[in-house]
Amino acid sequence: MALGVPAVPFTFVVHALGFSGLVLVLVWTIDFRGGFAWKSTNKSLIFNIHPFLMLVGLIIIGGEAIVSYKSLPLRKDVKKLIHLVLHAIALILGIVGICAAFKYHNESAIANLYSLHSWLGIGIIVLYGIQWIYGFVIFFYPGAPIGLRTVSLPWHVVFGILVYVLAVGNAALGFLEKLTFLENSGLAKYGSEAFLVNFTAVITVLFGAFVVLSVLSHAPVEEEDQGYSPITV
Amino acid sequence: MALGVPAVPFTFVVHALGFSGLVLVLVWTIDFRGGFAWKSTNKSLIFNIHPFLMLVGLIIIGGEAIVSYKSLPLRKDVKKLIHLVLHAIALILGIVGICAAFKYHNESAIANLYSLHSWLGIGIIVLYGIQWIYGFVIFFYPGAPIGLRTVSLPWHVVFGILVYVLAVGNAALGFLEKLTFLENSGLAKYGSEAFLVNFTAVITVLFGAFVVLSVLSHAPVEEEDQGYSPITV
Repeated sequence: MALGVPAVPFTFVVHALGFSGLVLVLVWTIDFRGGFAWKSTNKSLIFNIHPFLMLVGLIIIGGEAIVSYKSLPLRKDVKKLIHLVLHAIALILGIVGICAAFKYHNESAIANLYSLHSWLGIGIIVLYGIQWIYGFVIFFYPGAPIGLRTVSLPWHVVFGILVYVLAVGNAALGFLEKLTFLENSGLAKYGSEAFLVNFTAVITVLFGAFVVLSVLSHAPVEEEDQGYSPITV
Repeated sequence: MALGVPAVPFTFVVHALGFSGLVLVLVWTIDFRGGFAWKSTNKSLIFNIHPFLMLVGLIIIGGEAIVSYKSLPLRKDVKKLIHLVLHAIALILGIVGICAAFKYHNESAIANLYSLHSWLGIGIIVLYGIQWIYGFVIFFYPGAPIGLRTVSLPWHVVFGILVYVLAVGNAALGFLEKLTFLENSGLAKYGSEAFLVNFTAVITVLFGAFVVLSVLSHAPVEEEDQGYSPITV
């Protein structure tokens, strides 16, 4: 299932949407919600770390890690290193972001792990970690025999996209859940903050869609015939 | 991007998860929420039509429409007819389900179209309709020249999966949104109804994942070489 078009234009859209998402989540968390703190009597500042790190880490840096194979005019081994380092950063930021959500709940006497967003979130971060470790061991160090690499590669790509799409969907769930809490506490349903959060979620979904379109499109021609890179699957 | 495995086992999982989702949403809407009505002083009965028709229509029948190319041992033209008829049923049930949500809002003095779920929902049903009309005109009647069919097919498959995944994600948003409203009105966060709704959402997400895995896998061998069917893209 491949689109017969070059991936690079799609990756430009990915960069632009990712930058837009970064700006929007900063405007929301800093300008509307007061910024960040790991320790504070204003517990909302602890919560703010969560949407910021999840969006910038798991979604934007994770998405850039996926499209790096399609967007960078570099040797395959260099792109592989960039792919795994970006995914490691995404995973670490995601874990810290989840810790911030638990810290906020615990210090605010809010129940943990009752919502669909939290259930899926725990599942996704575990799958993301398993995916990273499997990819590292099979494709980087120590590396599997060529037969196992060849069998593993399409599953690595499909499972990776599946986990990534789940992460994008769960980000949308998170935006909706937080906004619903705020609206139940009196925030205007058609106010500027509500629109800002909804637009950030829409940008996030579009970002995810263009990441997937990039994966389904052709890498630059000079990179096409370099073996078992995910770009050619 | 294809998995070198047969699709049929995945389609069995699709059927089983779809049946489970149907049972769960019926238990929720009838046993916990009182059942259905198009006209009633109990406006909640009007709302109940919405999750039932969206899940059974757009998600389950829509998903079965997608995997019909992979699961049925029939001639390609028969499968194409089943594909487009099932998608038409899915689309009609989806439109009626959306009308039920508006009717419930209007008769209960609840604001329309302020939430991410509603925004994405309107976008998805429009895209689903466009996709159906384009597919009908190009691949069924009157049908496009072979060159245009060949160019259109991968886009039909990719765009179709994209819209479908958005629909599955938006179903999860809907379950979370409704459950959050109920919990804000006093429903127990760890109670049986909350767990039921969350599990229905998880089953819905798994159903969507197995629909995608079916599309990425091989159709039965005797159907493989029948030209421009989506199953071979």
